[in-house]
Amino acid sequence: MVPTSEYDVVIVGAGPAGLMLATWLSALKIRTKVVDKRSVKVLAGQADGVQCRTLEVAHSFGFVDRLIKEGAHINEICNWTPSIEGGLERTKRMPDNEPGTSRFPHVVLTQGRIERFLLDAMKDFNNLTVDRSIAPTGMTVDATLESDFSASAYPVSLTLRHLTEEESTPTQVGTVASGLHRSNVLSDDEADAMNGSVARGAYAHAGEEETVRAKFVVGCDGARSWVRKQLGLSLEGESANSLWGVLDAVVVTDFPDIRLKSSIQSKDAGSILVVPREKDLVRFYVQMGSTDPNERFDRSSISPESIVATAQRIFAPFKLECRHIDWWTIYEVGQRLCKTVTLDNRVFLAGDAFHTHSPKAGQGMNTSMMDSYNLGWKIAHVVQGKAAPSILDTYGLERHKVARELIDYDWKLSRMFAGKPITSDGKPVSHEEFKKFYESIGKWASGTAVHYLPNALVAPEREPSLAPGLPHGQRFESHAVVALADARPWHLADRFLADGRWRLVLFAGDVREPQQRDQLEQVAAYLDSPQGPLRTFTPASDDLDSVIEVITVISNPRISVEPNAFPDVLWPPKKPYGSRCYDKLYADDSSPVTPNERGEIYRHLGIDPKTGCVALVRPDQTVSLVCALDEIQQVGAFLSQFMVTQL
Amino acid sequence: MVPTSEYDVVIVGAGPAGLMLATWLSALKIRTKVVDKRSVKVLAGQADGVQCRTLEVAHSFGFVDRLIKEGAHINEICNWTPSIEGGLERTKRMPDNEPGTSRFPHVVLTQGRIERFLLDAMKDFNNLTVDRSIAPTGMTVDATLESDFSASAYPVSLTLRHLTEEESTPTQVGTVASGLHRSNVLSDDEADAMNGSVARGAYAHAGEEETVRAKFVVGCDGARSWVRKQLGLSLEGESANSLWGVLDAVVVTDFPDIRLKSSIQSKDAGSILVVPREKDLVRFYVQMGSTDPNERFDRSSISPESIVATAQRIFAPFKLECRHIDWWTIYEVGQRLCKTVTLDNRVFLAGDAFHTHSPKAGQGMNTSMMDSYNLGWKIAHVVQGKAAPSILDTYGLERHKVARELIDYDWKLSRMFAGKPITSDGKPVSHEEFKKFYESIGKWASGTAVHYLPNALVAPEREPSLAPGLPHGQRFESHAVVALADARPWHLADRFLADGRWRLVLFAGDVREPQQRDQLEQVAAYLDSPQGPLRTFTPASDDLDSVIEVITVISNPRISVEPNAFPDVLWPPKKPYGSRCYDKLYADDSSPVTPNERGEIYRHLGIDPKTGCVALVRPDQTVSLVCALDEIQQVGAFLSQFMVTQL
Repeated sequence: MVPTSEYDVVIVGAGPAGLMLATWLSALKIRTKVVDKRSVKVLAGQADGVQCRTLEVAHSFGFVDRLIKEGAHINEICNWTPSIEGGLERTKRMPDNEPGTSRFPHVVLTQGRIERFLLDAMKDFNNLTVDRSIAPTGMTVDATLESDFSASAYPVSLTLRHLTEEESTPTQVGTVASGLHRSNVLSDDEADAMNGSVARGAYAHAGEEETVRAKFVVGCDGARSWVRKQLGLSLEGESANSLWGVLDAVVVTDFPDIRLKSSIQSKDAGSILVVPREKDLVRFYVQMGSTDPNERFDRSSISPESIVATAQRIFAPFKLECRHIDWWTIYEVGQRLCKTVTLDNRVFLAGDAFHTHSPKAGQGMNTSMMDSYNLGWKIAHVVQGKAAPSILDTYGLERHKVARELIDYDWKLSRMFAGKPITSDGKPVSHEEFKKFYESIGKWASGTAVHYLPNALVAPEREPSLAPGLPHGQRFESHAVVALADARPWHLADRFLADGRWRLVLFAGDVREPQQRDQLEQVAAYLDSPQGPLRTFTPASDDLDSVIEVITVISNPRISVEPNAFPDVLWPPKKPYGSRCYDKLYADDSSPVTPNERGEIYRHLGIDPKTGCVALVRPDQTVSLVCALDEIQQVGAFLSQFMVTQL
Repeated sequence: MVPTSEYDVVIVGAGPAGLMLATWLSALKIRTKVVDKRSVKVLAGQADGVQCRTLEVAHSFGFVDRLIKEGAHINEICNWTPSIEGGLERTKRMPDNEPGTSRFPHVVLTQGRIERFLLDAMKDFNNLTVDRSIAPTGMTVDATLESDFSASAYPVSLTLRHLTEEESTPTQVGTVASGLHRSNVLSDDEADAMNGSVARGAYAHAGEEETVRAKFVVGCDGARSWVRKQLGLSLEGESANSLWGVLDAVVVTDFPDIRLKSSIQSKDAGSILVVPREKDLVRFYVQMGSTDPNERFDRSSISPESIVATAQRIFAPFKLECRHIDWWTIYEVGQRLCKTVTLDNRVFLAGDAFHTHSPKAGQGMNTSMMDSYNLGWKIAHVVQGKAAPSILDTYGLERHKVARELIDYDWKLSRMFAGKPITSDGKPVSHEEFKKFYESIGKWASGTAVHYLPNALVAPEREPSLAPGLPHGQRFESHAVVALADARPWHLADRFLADGRWRLVLFAGDVREPQQRDQLEQVAAYLDSPQGPLRTFTPASDDLDSVIEVITVISNPRISVEPNAFPDVLWPPKKPYGSRCYDKLYADDSSPVTPNERGEIYRHLGIDPKTGCVALVRPDQTVSLVCALDEIQQVGAFLSQFMVTQL
């Protein structure tokens, strides 16, 4: 007998994309199953770049502190090129991110630790864990149920096979010798490192199959995605254009920029990218093969020793000794993309299953996690009956654009980075051009400038914008404000936790002005009315802020107004005791204990401090709509296009 | 047969003082046993103020993030007094701490959570846990071994009795009704809340006794300390002068400052202190009894209802409803002090065992933890053979002064705070005087201005000081600097982890100047010499920075000098791979990603940016000595008075 069980969502693959989705769905209490064919999580090496935007999201899930504490921080980029005297010279220093890009730094840390943080978070939120040593073997979608989004319909059936220990133990390509460096595994990863899933008795069912039914299946199963194959889709695009060795090592060197992100373009020995890492490690991306796409290199000739030897030639005249190698690999990945990312909004692809590119850009893990971060709340909204299934169309629209931009960026970067820089038209690239390129993509590379075009969840931009710093389709740009009730300084986005809520930010302007206070009261009256979006889209049994949280930011000083002066709906009572929500009211002001640290959010976002404006922000912190206070009904009209009226 | 085992340190009592000591000793890998007679940790209520200095120390142990995340933050203090019209008016707003007091906020959070963080930290450091339901019944000190500080001597014998469940279950005074509010216990405290120690089989040995031998015993067992009684000592001082009700509740009120630290002195109904707390709680200190020391109040007449009723009278005309009471108690504590805190440097007292006072000052838990934080590294130094046992004399000298200051402060505060403010001379206190008093003690109350007088571990102050911002005997005042190697901005004290090391901070001045560079090279040559303190006091088998870490801060811009230009000893190689310590060299400069956030450490500390100075900092972050670079030999001379020469 084949046991069957039902889930809202089944996630295939527990890499960064799958675990981010699992964490999101766990936070939102969605019934989720996560399967992975590997018996153990990643422990060392692999992806490592964690961009500012990913830290912002990690903050919303509560684990950004761990990233900041464990990761190496990237603050500066240096370029080295051949000097006239024959050695190398530093030709450029640049901030890694334009100042003000984010309230969080750019960090680098092995994927293994990111997975740890996500695994811990998903367990903490709703006790969700990964079922390991399991691979899907069959998937069908019941056409009769496909458009049935009622609670009882589970149109996707997935057959899962419990693997044997042999089948599920990954070949540790890139792990030095046969085993892991146990001494380098942190204590909270030890159980995984020592036992894999053996201790959990996972192999008791080896060889058996089970069938699960799901409302949604998401393939986060990597570049060779099984789920993608079931959909008859494939990655399309260029194959590899060069071969790179990647090596994580503890080194002894007199190269002065070994703890900065540095690129060295040598005269004859090729290029190297140096990225400082946690625990005194340094990651090297070393060009090993040809830049000629017609000439292929022999992979088997590459070893850690040959990567180090090449690195030493590029580093000369600086000395470089690799005293400890933590992990290494070789890659020759091209830029490839899957045209379609869903089957009828029932099966989705995310991460490498949907786009691949080189790792040098430090974008892969971030983009993969941001794919499923984009998808997670939308699936949850549909499962919870908050929104129409049509919002799921926006996933492909939004993330395809990002994937295409990433591939374009990586294509340029890869060519720029090759030993003798060649542009697409076959001409060499000067290091001036190289620098220019780096500067031009800085903000995009931080993940903070990702921009979604108008769609069902992003209103068309109003001209001129009332908040030029808050373009529709971009993540809400945060600045410091101070809470009226407790005088605590906050970055406003620190309040945007990953709880599935929309945020309606009322930049109320200067409410000392009677006219402006009247305006705010009219806004509040609308929001508190039966026709307003709060009461329309929030179940009557829930707190009024549980679907859309209203946050008010005034431009006048904190102490020029008392909380009691604000209409109830702007700081509503909270179940079960009826105490006020003291965390809804803020001022563009400093705190008494940090009087010189006013965030100036109105100025930064370009909002008129007299008249203000309104910003509607999605559960993934993307700005949907900015309008004037007296246009507040636009918010309800916009939401009513896809949100479900609650009875 | 009575089993015997040997420990370096046995700690009696697992409250904040005991757990802080346990965490310290666990971090330093000292063989430690912690016993507590209660079967469960504190879960709600009790002490709650966590001062800035305590957060600084929490940072050094790695758990400050949890305090910042869970605690309510105190930013402003407001005073309310009767208005002429008959109601109440806000007569003063003040920052809770003078801006710049610390890089951390002042937070409030139930003692139960502080204990959780310490329990987790001590487990993480060296797998140390508390042995619960155990009480000491006998203690002897072997006079023949008392002055034998060799590794094999364990002069203190302690008989421990395993208690029954009844004996070890504390009467939950202050817990509403019979049980805890389970819904309010966080998930990581659940095991404690549900099972106590029952699940761990603690009662299997109930009634049995065992004897343990120790080099040191520390009594952290509260105001009624059993250890203190064994030493024949008692707390001396005033008994209670008034009776206060303390109540943690979720409230509904129109009082506008309910999320600020507010005091209300009513016309006729007495005084109340309002302290906002985590999870929407508010703590009230409500004056219940007489201010006349000759008149005692009947404790049994006080209930949560009577505390609330009194609070409501004081709050009038504002409304106050307590919808949920989390915890409550009554107290009538006087200011009392134990004259002696040690028996021959073998048995020590810390925390309430040594001083008691009212809780209103929010100092008790902090001072208790700072007692054992002061003691822990000294005991470890002696156990590890790093320092002479004589350094233990400084514990009593230093902490007695603090306890006396606290008692003096609390005495004044308690009288100020009484309904009709009375000074010691019997005259009423105006609210002007009240404010003045609050302002005068702000910095002291933050814990950052605690000052130890010259002793074996604090050199006499040099006049004039070369660093007026670093008085001998005070905690090292931190400012932001930038690392030369990776351009990362750090608060300098973020580098001072609780690892038992001394820090020698070389403010090297402007090393672009040849004369200053020469000076620094001479300092380095001394530090690298066999006669220098590093090689004299560090075992040859250890890293050169393992007893004294040298940190260099230059005043010239980061990019005006390369790390390679610094002598080896200032960024020494690290075992086992020989990579450089990249985290030793800093500049008084900004980071490329935060160009407007230069810390200006030279200016803040009053150090000459041309010529610099040297600061020697103890493992507890207390400044021992400041001297000029060309007086560097003073450092060796100072340390050689108590540090043990390693062979």
